[in-house]
Amino acid sequence: MHDQMVFVAAVTVLGVLEQAYFSLQVIYARRKYSVSPPCITGPPEFERVFRAQANCSEYFPIFIAILWVSGLYFNQAAASLCGLLYLYGRYQYFRGYSKSAQGRLAPLYFSAKMLWVLIGLSSAGVINYMCQLYLEVDFLRYLKQLIGL
Amino acid sequence: MHDQMVFVAAVTVLGVLEQAYFSLQVIYARRKYSVSPPCITGPPEFERVFRAQANCSEYFPIFIAILWVSGLYFNQAAASLCGLLYLYGRYQYFRGYSKSAQGRLAPLYFSAKMLWVLIGLSSAGVINYMCQLYLEVDFLRYLKQLIGL
Amino acid sequence: MHDQMVFVAAVTVLGVLEQAYFSLQVIYARRKYSVSPPCITGPPEFERVFRAQANCSEYFPIFIAILWVSGLYFNQAAASLCGLLYLYGRYQYFRGYSKSAQGRLAPLYFSAKMLWVLIGLSSAGVINYMCQLYLEVDFLRYLKQLIGL
Repeated sequence: MHDQMVFVAAVTVLGVLEQAYFSLQVIYARRKYSVSPPCITGPPEFERVFRAQANCSEYFPIFIAILWVSGLYFNQAAASLCGLLYLYGRYQYFRGYSKSAQGRLAPLYFSAKMLWVLIGLSSAGVINYMCQLYLEVDFLRYLKQLIGL
Repeated sequence: MHDQMVFVAAVTVLGVLEQAYFSLQVIYARRKYSVSPPCITGPPEFERVFRAQANCSEYFPIFIAILWVSGLYFNQAAASLCGLLYLYGRYQYFRGYSKSAQGRLAPLYFSAKMLWVLIGLSSAGVINYMCQLYLEVDFLRYLKQLIGL
Repeated sequence: MHDQMVFVAAVTVLGVLEQAYFSLQVIYARRKYSVSPPCITGPPEFERVFRAQANCSEYFPIFIAILWVSGLYFNQAAASLCGLLYLYGRYQYFRGYSKSAQGRLAPLYFSAKMLWVLIGLSSAGVINYMCQLYLEVDFLRYLKQLIGL
């Protein structure tokens, strides 16, 4: 399992570093706009940074769960690549949202698309694995043979 | 490990799909009640949907962590079954909370109970595994023999 | 993998129990200060408890992800120890924040430090593993030999 998941583990560490970066930005925004904890309301500039980080945090566990299931049951390389693109989309989302509510939309749609790709990969992987285990059919191998991989 | 966890992985994918469904409901509620991001306050109808999704998101990582530990150290079938019941309870909770603050209570207690069962299973599994490893005693096997499994 | 991760799994179960404890404290605070859901604003005493739990929940998935990667790719004992210290720091943070906004700072810095140690361990573990796999160099073993382990 270790060999098979090392790139997924690397993407996980990168994701954690990204979340740490977002959290630091909220701390800087709290200082800049003088919003002391536990208060979470303030000027729109602060609220946008706060909500951007809250939204990324909310999706983080969903991302990690689906990333690992994709890596375990579909394919490590595909899962890691989608994971990297998702993290890139989230970075653009955070920067965009910090500037304006409008600026969050394009990267939000992009990172949502990456999540859907990961959901697709993991569903395909899990269903195929069950078919292999109980029906002794391996659709993914047929597909790979078909496209000559 | 793959064979042993495929149902837990399937429940994980279902859980991610459920969270995606809840997130879409918040987007619809934002449009319906004209609450633009980053604002998170509005009419009680909106705030209930928003809080229902926030509460489910908050418990999602706890659920996934305990589900996988139960599957790995106790038993895949028991973990997956409790996981499915938990997700069903969360769906009822979301629907109930969307209608009234009162409507969230019964399914909330049900899904909390399922979480406690998973905490119990994973604690039993981890403690038994440690006893096996260091004391060479396997309580769970004795128990299974006792009830004739 | 089971033997290698049993202490990490035990720390995970402890972390889930800690989150359950924090959630119960929010329910008690809601009753004490008469703040009914979906409302999340109220007297500062309530808001501090609410924010303390929200902050711990936000970091929980980050903590679990980095704990498991550290355990899988660096070393179980080191990961579990840092994990225990992190959970202890979070408990102190919750108690401190419940009393005053100032009281959250020292344990917050402590638990943040533990997270950074875990990020360091997992990065070292993953990079070393990749070097082993593709460059056939094992830095961590050299280091262990150097310090006579």
